[in-house]
Amino acid sequence: MIVGIVKEPEEESRVAMLPEAVKTLKSWNVEVMVETGAGKKAFADDALYQESGAEIVDRSTLLQKVDIVCGIQALSIAEIRSMGPKSVLMGQFNALYNPELTHFLIHESRTAFSMELVPRTTRAQSMDVLSSMATVVGYKAVLMAANLLPRFFPMFMTAAGTITPSRVLILGAGVAGLQAIATAKRLGATVFAFDVRQAAKEEVMSLGAKFVEVEGATDDKSAGGYAVEQNEDFIHRQKEAIHEQATKADVVITTAQIPGKKAPLLIEERTVLAMKPGAVVIDLAASSGGNCALTQADQTVSINGVSIVGVGNLAAQLPQDASKMYGKNYLNFLKLIIKEGQMNLNFEDDIVSGTCVCHEGKPVNSRITQMINN
Amino acid sequence: MIVGIVKEPEEESRVAMLPEAVKTLKSWNVEVMVETGAGKKAFADDALYQESGAEIVDRSTLLQKVDIVCGIQALSIAEIRSMGPKSVLMGQFNALYNPELTHFLIHESRTAFSMELVPRTTRAQSMDVLSSMATVVGYKAVLMAANLLPRFFPMFMTAAGTITPSRVLILGAGVAGLQAIATAKRLGATVFAFDVRQAAKEEVMSLGAKFVEVEGATDDKSAGGYAVEQNEDFIHRQKEAIHEQATKADVVITTAQIPGKKAPLLIEERTVLAMKPGAVVIDLAASSGGNCALTQADQTVSINGVSIVGVGNLAAQLPQDASKMYGKNYLNFLKLIIKEGQMNLNFEDDIVSGTCVCHEGKPVNSRITQMINN
Repeated sequence: MIVGIVKEPEEESRVAMLPEAVKTLKSWNVEVMVETGAGKKAFADDALYQESGAEIVDRSTLLQKVDIVCGIQALSIAEIRSMGPKSVLMGQFNALYNPELTHFLIHESRTAFSMELVPRTTRAQSMDVLSSMATVVGYKAVLMAANLLPRFFPMFMTAAGTITPSRVLILGAGVAGLQAIATAKRLGATVFAFDVRQAAKEEVMSLGAKFVEVEGATDDKSAGGYAVEQNEDFIHRQKEAIHEQATKADVVITTAQIPGKKAPLLIEERTVLAMKPGAVVIDLAASSGGNCALTQADQTVSINGVSIVGVGNLAAQLPQDASKMYGKNYLNFLKLIIKEGQMNLNFEDDIVSGTCVCHEGKPVNSRITQMINN
Repeated sequence: MIVGIVKEPEEESRVAMLPEAVKTLKSWNVEVMVETGAGKKAFADDALYQESGAEIVDRSTLLQKVDIVCGIQALSIAEIRSMGPKSVLMGQFNALYNPELTHFLIHESRTAFSMELVPRTTRAQSMDVLSSMATVVGYKAVLMAANLLPRFFPMFMTAAGTITPSRVLILGAGVAGLQAIATAKRLGATVFAFDVRQAAKEEVMSLGAKFVEVEGATDDKSAGGYAVEQNEDFIHRQKEAIHEQATKADVVITTAQIPGKKAPLLIEERTVLAMKPGAVVIDLAASSGGNCALTQADQTVSINGVSIVGVGNLAAQLPQDASKMYGKNYLNFLKLIIKEGQMNLNFEDDIVSGTCVCHEGKPVNSRITQMINN
């Protein structure tokens, strides 16, 4: 069988698998085709893929010939139609919130897997692209903030006096938030963090950050580690607490997203106007509406000396290691569906069925079925 | 008496003193005039200066009325002519290597002090702008590199495998180099450093970096902590050692400058061509010719996937804390020449005479005299 690695669209710098992943696939007796220039922006040129045993081909050849098309961003509908009839499509299509594509895949009797559907179980951790990309995003958000801030992150004791450390506020202590905390601490900042999930408190504190307490949050352990929507009274008190903390902060990094919903508004306009001149807000929820009232997606705006960065695809800004991690996640998943060099789709396996959008046009997992019936 | 703080030229974001320094001057019974908008790019607006007790005035009023003009970048010749006849000019004019300006100041019978002339003695440490700005530059160079690098700086052990730490090579372990080492270590990189001064070895190692040894360097302790020019045989072996280290590195930060001379060439073209795709070179000597053969001043070029950043005035990219440190250095110096609210120029003080370009048109220190006689 043949696995194919497609080139991503113009605005994406990552690639689904680097040459090192090709070597692993070859060791499984799997052939690999790579689209010309697929790894260029991740600093892996065609020659490196060839040295690892891949064949470099053009896009239409790849789509027609391979058994599994591996990518990150979704292909166009015309391109999916041009794929071999039995071949499998893989990527990160946001399948539950992209009904047009999901319905199309079902209608065309396709078999497709979408990596964001990987169950959040211990066994599936090594395939969890949401976690690995959130690690990249949290790290990169802090570097971006430190680079924009007109002040130092660390404390300095110099012959000419003391520079106090910067104060960083992280809203949301999921994987991205925790990585942001760890990176800001590394750089010497004083870090405060807030999360509606009480479970986050211990993790925040173990990284050396201070947890901002707001009593009475709704906590739903069945939400798979995600935060859930909160009642009005809590939201009011939360806003006051965040307002108070944000106006003392040099950097605010917001990471609060609710899958398939508009991001919660955490930083109001009045808060930005009361912040320190020179302060920086990095809004990682910009693509789903933003956690800050003044965020503009994919833009940096400056209001009263406060920079607000509406971050888009931040993982693409660390393309080499992001692709390395993505490829590892991919290989760990492919290991489940390739046996002795042949495709082996075992839907008894909860990871295989959980990640599947549809198999020969039929949904095999309850989340997709539910979405279709709505 | 009145101290004046001028607005810097367009390309400069720092200001000589922030509002907090104005408060100190006021406590010495000194009046302060600040040029409209002087602190804007350092996030200190006119209102803040006013609250601290300064009067906001236009540029020509300031130049005519104040007793000491405090700035960073040099003023134009016409502006110096417009200053009150007895007033003192202060800034960072690179006086020893700017003969045109120095001769003009002497010719016009001016009194001027240039902060880069502050002697490198223990007592003068608190006024040493070269050291404080080098601290800013070393920190900022690492942030810039980490932001450009397509890889993580720190090591990560994740469910999907291990990310190895980035390898950073620092050439020159002066103040900027040492701060770069410390910052890269904070961010979790593996750091190697090289310096021709054997004295640097211990400092490098105490920061947790590895010292790259090349035997037989010329070391001149009378050079005030600066490196001196090296013989041909040493330069050849040094280039080989640097070539070998640089081709293994993810980031190279070069800081080697010799005052008044062209910067030594440390990274040859063949070295860049042999570096890893995605690697980053930050050349802090770009304004004096560059330590890398392919550096272009004030530009970032990409050769075979290697980014080479020809850094200009990097201290200006951390304007708030850089101005804070600059202002502290300024205050510590002004304390020597202001007594009970009055100007008090005591040239018996080695710091006062050492920092003086000329007093009423006469050079008072041997470095300036020597330069004029050449």
